[in-house]
Amino acid sequence: MAYEHRIVREVEFYHTDMAGIMHFSNFYRFMEAAEHAFFRSLGLSIHTVDPEPLGWPRVHADCDFSYPLRFEDSVEIQLLVREKREKSLVYTFIFRKVSGEPRREVARGTLAVACVKLDSATGKMRAVPIPKAIADKIEAAPPEAFGE
Amino acid sequence: MAYEHRIVREVEFYHTDMAGIMHFSNFYRFMEAAEHAFFRSLGLSIHTVDPEPLGWPRVHADCDFSYPLRFEDSVEIQLLVREKREKSLVYTFIFRKVSGEPRREVARGTLAVACVKLDSATGKMRAVPIPKAIADKIEAAPPEAFGE
Amino acid sequence: MAYEHRIVREVEFYHTDMAGIMHFSNFYRFMEAAEHAFFRSLGLSIHTVDPEPLGWPRVHADCDFSYPLRFEDSVEIQLLVREKREKSLVYTFIFRKVSGEPRREVARGTLAVACVKLDSATGKMRAVPIPKAIADKIEAAPPEAFGE
Amino acid sequence: MAYEHRIVREVEFYHTDMAGIMHFSNFYRFMEAAEHAFFRSLGLSIHTVDPEPLGWPRVHADCDFSYPLRFEDSVEIQLLVREKREKSLVYTFIFRKVSGEPRREVARGTLAVACVKLDSATGKMRAVPIPKAIADKIEAAPPEAFGE
Repeated sequence: MAYEHRIVREVEFYHTDMAGIMHFSNFYRFMEAAEHAFFRSLGLSIHTVDPEPLGWPRVHADCDFSYPLRFEDSVEIQLLVREKREKSLVYTFIFRKVSGEPRREVARGTLAVACVKLDSATGKMRAVPIPKAIADKIEAAPPEAFGE
Repeated sequence: MAYEHRIVREVEFYHTDMAGIMHFSNFYRFMEAAEHAFFRSLGLSIHTVDPEPLGWPRVHADCDFSYPLRFEDSVEIQLLVREKREKSLVYTFIFRKVSGEPRREVARGTLAVACVKLDSATGKMRAVPIPKAIADKIEAAPPEAFGE
Repeated sequence: MAYEHRIVREVEFYHTDMAGIMHFSNFYRFMEAAEHAFFRSLGLSIHTVDPEPLGWPRVHADCDFSYPLRFEDSVEIQLLVREKREKSLVYTFIFRKVSGEPRREVARGTLAVACVKLDSATGKMRAVPIPKAIADKIEAAPPEAFGE
Repeated sequence: MAYEHRIVREVEFYHTDMAGIMHFSNFYRFMEAAEHAFFRSLGLSIHTVDPEPLGWPRVHADCDFSYPLRFEDSVEIQLLVREKREKSLVYTFIFRKVSGEPRREVARGTLAVACVKLDSATGKMRAVPIPKAIADKIEAAPPEAFGE
């Protein structure tokens, strides 16, 4: 059972905006990248169609920004499982600048995702319990994991 | 004094992802587009360099997603000023699908921005009171504006 | 039969990069937006699943950039059909800044797209003749349409 | 003197579109990422302000797409210097899928960039010779480097 995963991403030129810093929308994209890498680290994929299409639509996302990231900064995104429910997962993400000085936490966010089955005929989504093969590999992180 | 603004955006192909819906990061981009259009509607610009560079870094952003948006949907983004503080503003954004049926609220988000002066020599930001020329044009929306 | 369509888009903050101008990748996104709007102007959609899924993958795209676009610029994207072939279309796009001064052509690009059927079982694409209902509505633009 | 550099990027969920493949605009972003990594591999940065701001605006970019990339594919982007001129550089980029089977070239593109000085007062750009410290580190690739 796992409750944590870390990835590192570099701030590319196209992530920046005219204020000279990484556009805030990219923090959400990096959260999702960490979520998907977490699944891969467990031998899973976020994208499964067998036995039937399973999806993880976002129901909530938030982020607090404390320091800007700039072009060519390296940022570590630490995923922590905050809550494991029957039909949903809640993750916390801690962003840390890991290049240059000072190294520090620059942002902290949350992503809440529902587990759904997709009806390919209608495109409709229906919340379902997280399949056992997935649920058995994931657990909530202990409270102390969220401290700095 | 104004506390509200509405824009309409169309979901373009490049806003979608392989799940067939608008990628959630674009909701944040549309919030910001509404914020900037709000400033323009007041004869202001979010980007001013005179008498000195003023910026509005994001300190918090969140969004709750209730229905997906799809390619070619039209979405209205309604900005409401939720709080007006000395050095920051908090906006609520209500997303409504305004094409096809059913028309309804599909998401609701928040953006908290600080008013800062940019030191062009060091790139550092310093929180400052919102200039009077801007503050005089903006007020908090009444509570009933947030109902559906 | 139509060979031309125009749309206007505004340069949003998230389109810019740290050089203070619109990131060049967005020119390609605007080309595609014009292509899709062209289809809608003909009562068509780029996204059809009936009688079977039809797609228009890009096989080539290029762009020459002569002037930068900046935040809050309005840009007109003019689509011209340059070639109509049995199984593909080639478009030219002329970008003109239509806000502020001077107004002028700022970029010119090309998009070549193939008409394909998607095999939903395998995900494979197969080039097919453009359906008559679509082909009958589109014609190549006369040479003089491409002049400035 | 160097004429080549390779990076690997993974196709993230946010790179995909509703056709289930990587949106073509991202190929251009990956080209640019390879260009910047090439500069870093030479101990340079694409972003320099000393002794004065130097920029590399894109004057032309094209890409031919032969196979689609999908979520979680790894793609190698090989940069080759095709032309070294007094005031500009032309790069070729070869995209190869390096995960799963079959591994093969999936796209090939070109980027032509000008070397400019930025007048920070007016924002205007002026083409200038590539500084010797940069030019001395870069050479055109031999013709055989472009073969498959």
